[in-house]
Amino acid sequence: MPLDLATIRAAHDRIRPHIFRTPVLTNARLNAACGAKLFFKCENLQKVGAFKARGATNAVFSLGEAESLRGVATHSSGNHAAALARAAKLRGIPAHIVMPSNSSKPKIRAVEGYGGKITFCEPNQAAREETCNRILEQTLATMVHPFEDERVMAGQGTAVLELLEDAHDLDLVLCPVGGGGLLCGTAIAGKAVRPQLQIIGTEPAGADDAARSFRARQHLPLTKVETIADGLRTNIGQPNLAIALHSVDNIVTVSEAAIIAAMRLIWEAVKVIVEPSGAVPYAAILENKIDVANRRVGIILSGGNVDLDSLPWLAAK
Amino acid sequence: MPLDLATIRAAHDRIRPHIFRTPVLTNARLNAACGAKLFFKCENLQKVGAFKARGATNAVFSLGEAESLRGVATHSSGNHAAALARAAKLRGIPAHIVMPSNSSKPKIRAVEGYGGKITFCEPNQAAREETCNRILEQTLATMVHPFEDERVMAGQGTAVLELLEDAHDLDLVLCPVGGGGLLCGTAIAGKAVRPQLQIIGTEPAGADDAARSFRARQHLPLTKVETIADGLRTNIGQPNLAIALHSVDNIVTVSEAAIIAAMRLIWEAVKVIVEPSGAVPYAAILENKIDVANRRVGIILSGGNVDLDSLPWLAAK
Repeated sequence: MPLDLATIRAAHDRIRPHIFRTPVLTNARLNAACGAKLFFKCENLQKVGAFKARGATNAVFSLGEAESLRGVATHSSGNHAAALARAAKLRGIPAHIVMPSNSSKPKIRAVEGYGGKITFCEPNQAAREETCNRILEQTLATMVHPFEDERVMAGQGTAVLELLEDAHDLDLVLCPVGGGGLLCGTAIAGKAVRPQLQIIGTEPAGADDAARSFRARQHLPLTKVETIADGLRTNIGQPNLAIALHSVDNIVTVSEAAIIAAMRLIWEAVKVIVEPSGAVPYAAILENKIDVANRRVGIILSGGNVDLDSLPWLAAK
Repeated sequence: MPLDLATIRAAHDRIRPHIFRTPVLTNARLNAACGAKLFFKCENLQKVGAFKARGATNAVFSLGEAESLRGVATHSSGNHAAALARAAKLRGIPAHIVMPSNSSKPKIRAVEGYGGKITFCEPNQAAREETCNRILEQTLATMVHPFEDERVMAGQGTAVLELLEDAHDLDLVLCPVGGGGLLCGTAIAGKAVRPQLQIIGTEPAGADDAARSFRARQHLPLTKVETIADGLRTNIGQPNLAIALHSVDNIVTVSEAAIIAAMRLIWEAVKVIVEPSGAVPYAAILENKIDVANRRVGIILSGGNVDLDSLPWLAAK
């Protein structure tokens, strides 16, 4: 199936009963501070606390009946793991989740809570893939990659469809870039519905592989990663980069200080909990990386899963 | 004007252009924990960060043209001050706000930001009223009391109208009680729309005047106040108590520990910022003060104005 507007609209129809139509919030204070109109699409309020519920649910409910009975599998330390476990539970099929042994307790509990079957592995990419491949051979489950899977990308693209319905005449949509699933779905859906819409990816400077790869027009993986935005520490996928190169207008990077300041301002003014990764697009506005003056700007608040015992602006003191 | 459904519907029509239709959020984890279906009406996401925007806006836009030009006045250290200043600015009239000299900087800045004319006074009730009376004499402005004013109560009652539209077949609505403006508006509107709806007020045990007054059927002001829920430290108004006695089903109290736990759980699971006062209704569920099993329960998250540098669950460590 091609990743196009029809596929993304079909994904939307498929997942609608299982996801939350998240609100779009605005804030006079943040608008005044940047001279733009900002529209925050609150995927931090989505099921499992992140847009990942969309892609995982679309993948699971896209499966044929016989195929579905063998279950699904993935490797993930983050929100995709919980999202896939939840979607599988909704469909009544098994979910095999490979998680690095150093995954956080809340993330593990979330997967367990949805009945996911967890296999722990050494915390490196090779062990994750090897363990996942072994499980796929044993179970004949369907692999659902966190961001390279087109069914996942199509699901992630449904958020911007809702955003464009609720916030009219947007000039620009900003979203964070990790593996690039959200970026690709957003770019394809957004440009198809509204051709003049600009799509800009935003990334921590401490995990800037997507920005570098986008400029060089070739895949340049990270050699080191240093960012509080744990959802964005992964490399952009090869298929995701290819899509970004023909559908995304730009990818910009932001400092750690701007991420923390943006996160705090969103909590304080918009009054929703956003995780560091979800604050990255607004950080790009704070750091003047994007010209937003007098424009109508959609921002995808991608997730809200944080540890309330360790808040970055308090740790810094 | 009587405080009835017609008045509250008229208030809703009057303020609709100036307030935000706040979302109603649900959460599977919190539902499972109490065996009920909870519907959180997010007035913490309201303009000025609290339901107070509703009542103040209704009062300001209820004024006749000539009367309005003399402006409005109030004494308040909290969200009502900002809400009244904002409403006055929207109508283009002056707002005279008497604030205790020990008001928090963010609260002062909020009032200034909306162009309110602040007069500081000694931090006691007598000084507040005296200063306010002097200003009323000088300016001939209209007094807008934070909770005893029927226009204010009618405005506060509009939140439950929206809640009942968005969450069907509710059995019960819980709201916090400070002066009782929200409680009265909610009870009158809620019972008029849905006669079988129970309305329960919730209050910190450390500021339990409304619960004691409700039981004794007479006004019993606080002799001491000890609660983190700063929005609820005030005594219930005499007219508010009279209305509560014929329209409210019960008023229950909660411990400080439950308020902090409830606040944290709402942040963590619902992923919205709620201030301690706004967490009091859910605290009553946590402490089993209300039988919610198998019931559909509306909860008004009344406000979200907090100091992100001092979170109670971190201070306790």
